[in-house]
Amino acid sequence: MTDRTAVTVIGLGAMGTALADALLGNGHPTTVWNRTAAKADPLVAKGATRADTAADAVAASPVVVLCVLDDASVRAVLAAAPGALAGRTVVNLTNGTPQQARATAAWAADQGARYLDGGIMAVPPMIGGPGAFILYSGPREVFEEHQGLLAALGAATYVGEDPGLASLQDLALLSAMYGMFGGFEHALSMVAAQQVPAVEFAPLAASWLEAMLAGLPGIAEGFDAGTADNDESNLAMQAVALDNIIDASADSGVDPELMRLLRARMLRGAAR
Amino acid sequence: MTDRTAVTVIGLGAMGTALADALLGNGHPTTVWNRTAAKADPLVAKGATRADTAADAVAASPVVVLCVLDDASVRAVLAAAPGALAGRTVVNLTNGTPQQARATAAWAADQGARYLDGGIMAVPPMIGGPGAFILYSGPREVFEEHQGLLAALGAATYVGEDPGLASLQDLALLSAMYGMFGGFEHALSMVAAQQVPAVEFAPLAASWLEAMLAGLPGIAEGFDAGTADNDESNLAMQAVALDNIIDASADSGVDPELMRLLRARMLRGAAR
Repeated sequence: MTDRTAVTVIGLGAMGTALADALLGNGHPTTVWNRTAAKADPLVAKGATRADTAADAVAASPVVVLCVLDDASVRAVLAAAPGALAGRTVVNLTNGTPQQARATAAWAADQGARYLDGGIMAVPPMIGGPGAFILYSGPREVFEEHQGLLAALGAATYVGEDPGLASLQDLALLSAMYGMFGGFEHALSMVAAQQVPAVEFAPLAASWLEAMLAGLPGIAEGFDAGTADNDESNLAMQAVALDNIIDASADSGVDPELMRLLRARMLRGAAR
Repeated sequence: MTDRTAVTVIGLGAMGTALADALLGNGHPTTVWNRTAAKADPLVAKGATRADTAADAVAASPVVVLCVLDDASVRAVLAAAPGALAGRTVVNLTNGTPQQARATAAWAADQGARYLDGGIMAVPPMIGGPGAFILYSGPREVFEEHQGLLAALGAATYVGEDPGLASLQDLALLSAMYGMFGGFEHALSMVAAQQVPAVEFAPLAASWLEAMLAGLPGIAEGFDAGTADNDESNLAMQAVALDNIIDASADSGVDPELMRLLRARMLRGAAR
């Protein structure tokens, strides 16, 4: 039987709107609420029900999806719905820390609500499509009960009972992405400083980074085993390459701070 | 006609050995030299000729491939072969800066030698295989004349007449890689601090980073256009995510210095 559970989406930024849209598109009766009410207009035009207050929004559906700016906003919304949470399932897709997820889970339990924490690994246009995946943590039976509904948003990946595990892995994945983007932007600055257009360089960088992804499992194995790379000749070559990056950056007026930090970390890792 | 030009390889670390091996395997009469002579033994067993001195090595072949630790080693080798360079083609695959490449090109020209600078985008086991690519810069006719020989090492990509362009793009690609690896190692530290094994997390990270590679062309377009991402709601979400990464890292005893730097860079970029 297709899951047609009624659902409320709170927070209608680009991501919340994409989530509500995907739920509507999958036939879920969907109630929406946003602090700035006009953000709901396009969804209401597509058949969503507008709630007048956060409390009404929570009371409208057995499943309440939260996608607001931060943990403080989560708390403000939930605090505005006293008594309305009992018996409901809260699915919190707001970016937060593991500690925040655990605290909100405990608070929700005190209110008689069930709680799943989620980490969205996608940008809004990907929601509902094959490329989106969302990490979930919390009670397995709650995840399994709502798997049909959650699948409307993207591939639903359960990572464990501890409610902090989804945001932990979400933040870790984002940190890896920021590292990659930071390195890429450094690279763009280097080539642009010598009149190579970034768009000409980008495809080369994309295929190079894709090839280098093959090294990740090996790095992870070494990490778990506590065996940093301490092959002396390899380390010497890496140190030369990083020195050359730093020198070439400085020669071109590109701030080498990121590469200095990565060099220091590599040498500290090797010394351990 | 298959290219069987005689070639000399100077520098027999893991990379130089792989280069000589690929050249031998493609039927090039290959002379080798290394400061520590014993490094040549396995190649000699496969048919390479051992030169007794750097000068003999340079004199032995019309094409001389250099793959030593750094620019100082390049200069030391070439200085030890006075007069032997005239009429030869030097292919310098040693990691160096654009300025070093330009200086060595000028010096080689003074000696009557032709010069190509190269940047190897591969680890030694990839040399000669389909995944290796090598960037070259210098006179186009020299590159074209030796394309057959260079193809034995990996896909040969010509990036321009300015001898500094290969090392520029080599170093830029490496800087992007170090950013990606640095972010990945930060991510591993975050998950490991909460008892998630790195090897369990790595496949998730690899597929996430692969998906995020799709964003690189857009970043490059924005970079060329000078339009940093200044969508306020997007920036606010990114700042929250980076704050959460920093907080969650610190909560687990993971040094957040890399993420602090990336956060500062993102905000400075947005302010421009």
